[in-house]
Amino acid sequence: MSGNTFGSLFAVTNFGESHGPAIGCVIDGCPPGMALSEADIQGDLDRRRPGTSRHVTQRQEEDKVEILSGVYEGHTTGTPICLLIRNTDQRSKDYSEIAQTFRPGHADYTYIQKYGLRDPRGGGRSSARLTAPMVAAGAVAKKWLRDRYGTTFRGCMTQIGEVAIPFEGWEHVPRNPFFAPVADVSQLEAYMDSLRKAGDSCGARVRVVASKVPVGLGEPLFDKLDADIAYAMMGINAVKGVEIGAGFASVTQRGTTHGDSLSPQGFKSNNAGGVLGGISTGQDLDVAIAIKPTSSIISPRETINIRGEPTEVVTKGRHDPCVGIRATPIAEAMLALVVMEHALRQRAQNGDVQSPLAPIASSFL
Amino acid sequence: MSGNTFGSLFAVTNFGESHGPAIGCVIDGCPPGMALSEADIQGDLDRRRPGTSRHVTQRQEEDKVEILSGVYEGHTTGTPICLLIRNTDQRSKDYSEIAQTFRPGHADYTYIQKYGLRDPRGGGRSSARLTAPMVAAGAVAKKWLRDRYGTTFRGCMTQIGEVAIPFEGWEHVPRNPFFAPVADVSQLEAYMDSLRKAGDSCGARVRVVASKVPVGLGEPLFDKLDADIAYAMMGINAVKGVEIGAGFASVTQRGTTHGDSLSPQGFKSNNAGGVLGGISTGQDLDVAIAIKPTSSIISPRETINIRGEPTEVVTKGRHDPCVGIRATPIAEAMLALVVMEHALRQRAQNGDVQSPLAPIASSFL
Amino acid sequence: MSGNTFGSLFAVTNFGESHGPAIGCVIDGCPPGMALSEADIQGDLDRRRPGTSRHVTQRQEEDKVEILSGVYEGHTTGTPICLLIRNTDQRSKDYSEIAQTFRPGHADYTYIQKYGLRDPRGGGRSSARLTAPMVAAGAVAKKWLRDRYGTTFRGCMTQIGEVAIPFEGWEHVPRNPFFAPVADVSQLEAYMDSLRKAGDSCGARVRVVASKVPVGLGEPLFDKLDADIAYAMMGINAVKGVEIGAGFASVTQRGTTHGDSLSPQGFKSNNAGGVLGGISTGQDLDVAIAIKPTSSIISPRETINIRGEPTEVVTKGRHDPCVGIRATPIAEAMLALVVMEHALRQRAQNGDVQSPLAPIASSFL
Amino acid sequence: MSGNTFGSLFAVTNFGESHGPAIGCVIDGCPPGMALSEADIQGDLDRRRPGTSRHVTQRQEEDKVEILSGVYEGHTTGTPICLLIRNTDQRSKDYSEIAQTFRPGHADYTYIQKYGLRDPRGGGRSSARLTAPMVAAGAVAKKWLRDRYGTTFRGCMTQIGEVAIPFEGWEHVPRNPFFAPVADVSQLEAYMDSLRKAGDSCGARVRVVASKVPVGLGEPLFDKLDADIAYAMMGINAVKGVEIGAGFASVTQRGTTHGDSLSPQGFKSNNAGGVLGGISTGQDLDVAIAIKPTSSIISPRETINIRGEPTEVVTKGRHDPCVGIRATPIAEAMLALVVMEHALRQRAQNGDVQSPLAPIASSFL
Repeated sequence: MSGNTFGSLFAVTNFGESHGPAIGCVIDGCPPGMALSEADIQGDLDRRRPGTSRHVTQRQEEDKVEILSGVYEGHTTGTPICLLIRNTDQRSKDYSEIAQTFRPGHADYTYIQKYGLRDPRGGGRSSARLTAPMVAAGAVAKKWLRDRYGTTFRGCMTQIGEVAIPFEGWEHVPRNPFFAPVADVSQLEAYMDSLRKAGDSCGARVRVVASKVPVGLGEPLFDKLDADIAYAMMGINAVKGVEIGAGFASVTQRGTTHGDSLSPQGFKSNNAGGVLGGISTGQDLDVAIAIKPTSSIISPRETINIRGEPTEVVTKGRHDPCVGIRATPIAEAMLALVVMEHALRQRAQNGDVQSPLAPIASSFL
Repeated sequence: MSGNTFGSLFAVTNFGESHGPAIGCVIDGCPPGMALSEADIQGDLDRRRPGTSRHVTQRQEEDKVEILSGVYEGHTTGTPICLLIRNTDQRSKDYSEIAQTFRPGHADYTYIQKYGLRDPRGGGRSSARLTAPMVAAGAVAKKWLRDRYGTTFRGCMTQIGEVAIPFEGWEHVPRNPFFAPVADVSQLEAYMDSLRKAGDSCGARVRVVASKVPVGLGEPLFDKLDADIAYAMMGINAVKGVEIGAGFASVTQRGTTHGDSLSPQGFKSNNAGGVLGGISTGQDLDVAIAIKPTSSIISPRETINIRGEPTEVVTKGRHDPCVGIRATPIAEAMLALVVMEHALRQRAQNGDVQSPLAPIASSFL
Repeated sequence: MSGNTFGSLFAVTNFGESHGPAIGCVIDGCPPGMALSEADIQGDLDRRRPGTSRHVTQRQEEDKVEILSGVYEGHTTGTPICLLIRNTDQRSKDYSEIAQTFRPGHADYTYIQKYGLRDPRGGGRSSARLTAPMVAAGAVAKKWLRDRYGTTFRGCMTQIGEVAIPFEGWEHVPRNPFFAPVADVSQLEAYMDSLRKAGDSCGARVRVVASKVPVGLGEPLFDKLDADIAYAMMGINAVKGVEIGAGFASVTQRGTTHGDSLSPQGFKSNNAGGVLGGISTGQDLDVAIAIKPTSSIISPRETINIRGEPTEVVTKGRHDPCVGIRATPIAEAMLALVVMEHALRQRAQNGDVQSPLAPIASSFL
Repeated sequence: MSGNTFGSLFAVTNFGESHGPAIGCVIDGCPPGMALSEADIQGDLDRRRPGTSRHVTQRQEEDKVEILSGVYEGHTTGTPICLLIRNTDQRSKDYSEIAQTFRPGHADYTYIQKYGLRDPRGGGRSSARLTAPMVAAGAVAKKWLRDRYGTTFRGCMTQIGEVAIPFEGWEHVPRNPFFAPVADVSQLEAYMDSLRKAGDSCGARVRVVASKVPVGLGEPLFDKLDADIAYAMMGINAVKGVEIGAGFASVTQRGTTHGDSLSPQGFKSNNAGGVLGGISTGQDLDVAIAIKPTSSIISPRETINIRGEPTEVVTKGRHDPCVGIRATPIAEAMLALVVMEHALRQRAQNGDVQSPLAPIASSFL
């Protein structure tokens, strides 16, 4: 209820602050008997962690995960899995000044209004660092879904600031620091270098896709699969927009073109983005998100201080000039958590269902 | 868990099918002592109901609401408020053929895969008719929020198919069947007439705004105010995209322009759309949604039948050629339900909070 | 959260007041494809309803249930099932005086303190009449559990006031108005007649048993099966104590006698009452509850009025002199709802589990 | 949903196993601005911890708590509070044999049936050791309730095995290892010594009381305050029965004696145990629980092994001969968590309520 648990049947409770002793999460509801070790989780954490290129924050965090519970002799037991990540590179002095002023576009102001006090060290609880435990939890969900249904999750950046990134192929994504699906990222690097020199930040657009999703996931009225995806994505730090399938392009589509035709071999297109009536079709879940530019920048901004007086703020310290760069593994993890939740819900209510019709092939022709 | 309850502290449980005997909802958690009668609810229901212009479905439903519980001598008692709306104009014969085929872009296919059976009469549970009880529940939330905080909710259509609708003023919205903020809707009427003649449907874009929202609403990690708004909006039938504030435009913004400056007189812009770090700033909540074109159209579409054989489907019956036309009061209601939920959550945890800083003026200069 | 929904996966939302137009519930999460009609529900409602003997309230209510949604062509569809029961015999005038005073032992005082106002007609929301929708929902759960696992539910009265009732056999239970497992109830009738003449009321003890419960239901830490049973039972109007298995007798037992020995043929006793470590053993769930004497009695009682002044209260109207008499079908229903919830939870998380050991025979030798 | 989170608004998620690296919990929803340090928590942990007398398990655990998050400069911030307790004295070799057999009266059998595997070291997740994090969380709730409302929690043992313990005074409770409210515990010591010699275990009865509880807490239908108390208490390891107020004694009471009379000076008795209609009256919450004898005993017991073959089991290792001895601080903590949850719920829905009647004095004359 206070917003730190994600999901119900596969429930992930997140804790920690950017510069506290540790961050982590507790996963409750993981099915028992799955092989699981830290190595299954560390890979995705490494994809997200800071300090891996000059285009992201230079904070050095190993983000090494420790499993504190819920695993016995290498297998999940069905009891809560606590994942702990120690913070190692906090420099609280960087933030002393920030405690007195409110960065435009940042949660500083709203935290103080909501709680009456806030932990200003590195953004405290509002830091994007708190996505690390979700990436860890997402890795557990991904593993179970892959083992059980063959479901896989992929993501890539499709735009950074004014630079649209064409889709050349998934194989390029792991080979550059932008998660860009292109062979040559020199244009992106130049763009980021100029932005850094200007002391500014930029937004981004990221796409995330789940394949081999079982048909029938999602609840028809409120916990629609796409509604829960929107909730998960909009909950990622800095996200300002979410699209499923055709998204905003569907505004100008006609019914005769938007609705994906069905054939015995599968759907003939995927404007739906894998969801109809809130329930998965078995096609790829196809999601896009808009990420706003970072609010922590060294260019001076007009603001007020804690006494309500006008002032200027300049954010020093180590910050991502484009938080969208590290958003891909986060968005994948959140999508995996949504699918996991609904996979368990589906068998709770509908475990005995025999559809009169075999699912049609899950990808379009 | 099966997706028919919205909210936790102000929990609305929805029931019914398009062509069953009745639809309705149970509101649990309404604060006691508020004056409430059917008249407080009927107004919004009338704004949403079908058959009010030639541009929407011709089904005739009075959508007359009956309060079955939770109100005594004209005041809420704090116990569940059951709102019942009898269905009066069902023509089940229109749908006999549809039971055997799957409309492209419709929930027909996913329902049968999820449950193994479905109620095909008027779309059964997947019908947009089930938004009526939410409009009714939203009216209760709106009343409490207006009485308690002065919060108000408004919405309008900003695009219909290819036709962008400029914002001329809120005063125009109730004067035309499109909820369009323009004085002259003849272009929209012509567009819809041509679409109907073509036997096709179109999408729409709708904006919804809440004003005088208390500062501090929303949870910082998962139940962010904007995440819950995204969940609520994406859960409305046919919605494929959601934006808060600058939305997808923030992708190309710089940090120096996106972050809304603070001054003693208030924020100087509202790219945030009223939410920072998941928590309300006190500025207007500003939300946009993309609505896909209706899938029930009379133009023939390629599909399969329940035996998996290829066939064609033509949807007769009475359908909205643009479901976006009636979406405005629905989106307002869903936004009100989200704000209501978070208003109650806020005082649960933070009822004693004294912020060191008075909220700055809630609207931008 | 406001306490009118029972369960999560099989969630029953209850609404209505004793003398409002109707009472009822919405069941969300019922598995689809189960044959269901009003007749499947009416039987248990008839067992609970008032006016069936001189030993219970003389209010005449047919308690006729109407299915408003969730069933199509005689089968559940997986969508919410709304069950409506119209109130027909309200005599609000009986309660006019009561609105000003607080019955000792009744919720009158606490409602006014909690909500600031209350519906005094027939006890409003605090009336035991609100158990009727739970009996109806329980009938749906019972049917599914019987169809799916062969689970059955039985209950009986084991004590009424000072009169202990020996267990002679289940076959007697439906043959007398007390749900007493004895052939001859003349002693019970005499006891109740004398109590009525004295203008007083008495308590009761009721036992309820579930047989052929699947092994493995219940969560190990908090949502233990027995914890949820205790919650369900203590939530029934007037219940003041709950026991599982040996209950309070276990205080004086030794470990060598309490722990039920296991053998290949089954457990050799059932002190556990069918639950170990919060999880069902497959033995009978065996539950006992203590029900306090009715607080609405015609003997004058010392109290205060709404102005805080001392006064006397005499409760006229039609009341049960022993609410325990009609408690048996209610307790059965609540037990069924708990088992149903956990049956669905179990397959959500543990649907793939293969135990290395076949369950031992489910009843003791 | 998988039963490891207690509460909704003050939600405590528990993790860990008896012999894993650590146990702990995450508290979500704690109001901000409360002074809190480890010292506020350690006291209650010390009251519960093992090894403090010869009458409890000789396992040596310091149970030293570490606050990992949610506290900044000595005050709660409103974000999740993670409490970690490292396990230091695990002797896993003691349990190697136990992995193959099922102790009568223990969760061994049900865990293997539910999950298909189990962590046998020290009972794994089913160990009463997992109550330590609840005692820690309860200490946080107690502090807030005491600061905010003056609410206090006390408990004592009222029976151990066959030995009833008279109530001489609360002041004796902290002065003996039994939490017994008597000056002289030599009889209890002798009883326990003889039991230990016999290689057996015994049950106990514990009473727990909350004073200065605000009036109006609890929901009227399902989340009744007493129902949630019953749930909390029955969820404590080894509890088999729960009573509120008069409890099972109410079965033989008459309405004229059970119902507590009201006067301007307060209630004249407390058969209700502080709850009417599921809502707190403002009187003391008065709760009794029955605790079964420990199942881990050195006397040989008849059972089966994991291959389903008959065998005998003798439990060596370090176990409490009466788990009831350490149950008092646990029951207090669970009661505090229930009251805390409902205190927050109450102000969520009813924060604006002005009762027409001032609460009458909260304790009986």
